[in-house]
Amino acid sequence: MVRIIDISKDREFLAKLLDRNKLEIDEVNKSVDDILANVRRDKDSALREYTREFDGVVLEDFLVTRQEIEEAIDCTSKALLEDLARARENIEKYHRKQMKNSYSLYEGEDIILGQLVRPIERVGIYIPGGSAAYPSTVLMNAVPARIAGVNEIIMITPPDRNGKVKPSILAAASIAGADKIFKAGGAQGIAALAFGTESIPKVDKITGPGNIYVAMAKKRVMGLVGIDMIAGPSEILIIADQWANPKYIAADLISQAEHDEMAAAILVTDWEPLAAKVAEELEIQLQGLERREIIEKSLESYGAIIITSCLGESVDVANEIAPEHLEVLTRNPFDVYRGVKNAGAIFLGEYSPEPVGDYFAGPNHTLPTSSTSRFSSPLCVDDFIKKTSLIYYSKNALERSKDSIMRIAEEEGLTGHANSIRVRFDSEVSFKEAAVKCRR
Amino acid sequence: MVRIIDISKDREFLAKLLDRNKLEIDEVNKSVDDILANVRRDKDSALREYTREFDGVVLEDFLVTRQEIEEAIDCTSKALLEDLARARENIEKYHRKQMKNSYSLYEGEDIILGQLVRPIERVGIYIPGGSAAYPSTVLMNAVPARIAGVNEIIMITPPDRNGKVKPSILAAASIAGADKIFKAGGAQGIAALAFGTESIPKVDKITGPGNIYVAMAKKRVMGLVGIDMIAGPSEILIIADQWANPKYIAADLISQAEHDEMAAAILVTDWEPLAAKVAEELEIQLQGLERREIIEKSLESYGAIIITSCLGESVDVANEIAPEHLEVLTRNPFDVYRGVKNAGAIFLGEYSPEPVGDYFAGPNHTLPTSSTSRFSSPLCVDDFIKKTSLIYYSKNALERSKDSIMRIAEEEGLTGHANSIRVRFDSEVSFKEAAVKCRR
Repeated sequence: MVRIIDISKDREFLAKLLDRNKLEIDEVNKSVDDILANVRRDKDSALREYTREFDGVVLEDFLVTRQEIEEAIDCTSKALLEDLARARENIEKYHRKQMKNSYSLYEGEDIILGQLVRPIERVGIYIPGGSAAYPSTVLMNAVPARIAGVNEIIMITPPDRNGKVKPSILAAASIAGADKIFKAGGAQGIAALAFGTESIPKVDKITGPGNIYVAMAKKRVMGLVGIDMIAGPSEILIIADQWANPKYIAADLISQAEHDEMAAAILVTDWEPLAAKVAEELEIQLQGLERREIIEKSLESYGAIIITSCLGESVDVANEIAPEHLEVLTRNPFDVYRGVKNAGAIFLGEYSPEPVGDYFAGPNHTLPTSSTSRFSSPLCVDDFIKKTSLIYYSKNALERSKDSIMRIAEEEGLTGHANSIRVRFDSEVSFKEAAVKCRR
Repeated sequence: MVRIIDISKDREFLAKLLDRNKLEIDEVNKSVDDILANVRRDKDSALREYTREFDGVVLEDFLVTRQEIEEAIDCTSKALLEDLARARENIEKYHRKQMKNSYSLYEGEDIILGQLVRPIERVGIYIPGGSAAYPSTVLMNAVPARIAGVNEIIMITPPDRNGKVKPSILAAASIAGADKIFKAGGAQGIAALAFGTESIPKVDKITGPGNIYVAMAKKRVMGLVGIDMIAGPSEILIIADQWANPKYIAADLISQAEHDEMAAAILVTDWEPLAAKVAEELEIQLQGLERREIIEKSLESYGAIIITSCLGESVDVANEIAPEHLEVLTRNPFDVYRGVKNAGAIFLGEYSPEPVGDYFAGPNHTLPTSSTSRFSSPLCVDDFIKKTSLIYYSKNALERSKDSIMRIAEEEGLTGHANSIRVRFDSEVSFKEAAVKCRR
């Protein structure tokens, strides 16, 4: 079911995998553009119409009521509520270390330079519905926003055919501290957050995962509002040596493959006999699982066991693929990970399977996919703050620097820039006089 | 020439200004897509053809030679070289404070969580040619990249009709420490950086300003490579009270207006008599200036003097516009700026005109435009690093958490995730045994 590749002979699969980072789909863009335009123009009424069309329910109000939230909490098991609360604590503890402070530089009394760090005012969080409605996604988005000090967190999520939202989603939202929750999904939900409607306030930034329509809508409104990232299908790459347990490897490959048929689950090993073992284990473990069909499809299209000549080459392959999740199942994982340049999250050793990070340990599960870990990062507190530069020069400071500044301005052909420095010195009019002259 | 608005009566201009954040231009996208596709396929030969077509020169080699750089330095004035070196020092001093360190959290020996901070491997910097070829742009992009520890900085810039690059650009590149410089511009240059050609290596991220073609090309390749931001036309907003000097205000408005006809230069004041004074000063100062036509056009379309009822309202208007550059020319600027929520850079007091920040003081001059300071930040060291999460759980740690993790997994319908935890405990096969079994 899963292909076995000798990397020294066959690099085609690698090319195919790296090419999965697909271009935009035109028909999707077309309908997304219509949806964006209509919601921008007709606001709630357009949103209501699309909700009827896509979610199959007619909503009077989009806002989730206090009572709905309490009912949701009531019908969620105590155990699960405690699990989510523990997860939130872990996520908080990890993300608090990311808090950035403003800083200033002084040069006597003449120069003050600074970087102000402030929270983004209002953030919209998109939570998918249906089979991809994950309470953990609520925590992973809302908790860092709260830590950053975001003033208002608006969460949207599509309703089911009865106009309801999955209870554990609402429970997680109240545990994470979302300020308002609206029943809205798809591109129309993103449009509502980007442009604002009578019910849903316009936000400054939108984060959270979604299907291709949500992703394209986010890409379209980017610039008008901020967005986090355009997440692709999920990936796991496991580096294993002869000390690894094939049972665990198979289980972990499956845990990614079950996300969707586009997901990629890849084992890279310098220990050739492991390949057959793992293939065998995959067959055995597949029996019991609900999502078997999805898993088999994804293993067939993007699954692989890649044989390398040594551990170092395994690391090279990982760096080339730059996976979202990287598990290191080797005798000395702490030696191996130092060679890893590109990965969203690294899981070390046989008792740190990827689900530990998905739900619980603390680091964010929103990770760069499709090789984007080469240049981007897990969702973090930084995504919910903004910076502003601060510049103060005294008259002395400007006098000392004015020739340099004017010379560069002239070199750049920006005589107006040079002029704005010059007028401050060649003019007879002093600050006070000018002010007086201009006052009644 | 410049409109004077009473904000209590007229908010139309504000709406027009905020709407300047224009959508994509289809015909531009069409030709950009062709250029991207052709360079991706035909590499150097396509790049050579487009360079002939758009830059009017046929290039054998794109690489700028060591000798060309030395000649450029020789024909740049000592004074300007020293100015650029001083600017570089200031930029370094300011940006070094932005360095972020990796961190780790330990829970005894059972849990290790970390965030690794590493530089992006290879970065491409785009520097415009022609009248917008600014050596300061080279410093503002290359210096933060160097501080972040980027391994290789590739700079590209369009050649003139003689196949040459402006000397001060090459001088700045060598002062800032670019590793390689190539003569390539426009969408074809962005394509070369994103896909790689025989001469120009594929990069992980592209930063730097450019015309609409460059901007659209960056937006198209985003995801395949990282990009910094899509910068719009430049903006300045000046908050002034009765103590401000109309001469300085006029000069500073002009210094932005000269950038291009789309640039916005806006004065917001609660001191009505200032309006006439500044309008008068604009007329006077315009006389001497080379870029008079551009300045007049931009003041007519996007320039304004906005009258408010009090200083507080002036700050509100500034927050609504979220300007790229904000000057505070009031009696007590340090009291006023604290009310400012949205701005790229804030310039305090009458001796801190915006050009101080453009060239020299140290903060980056690449700033969020078109109201994007609501959610984005000046270019900084963070733009040249990436983060990776690190997760280690011991057997004990996983045992303590396994029920919670499995419960959340089950709630999310991801039985494969739960399975990857379960196999680690319900199996009789211990780590060692499995390894032994699997070894030859």
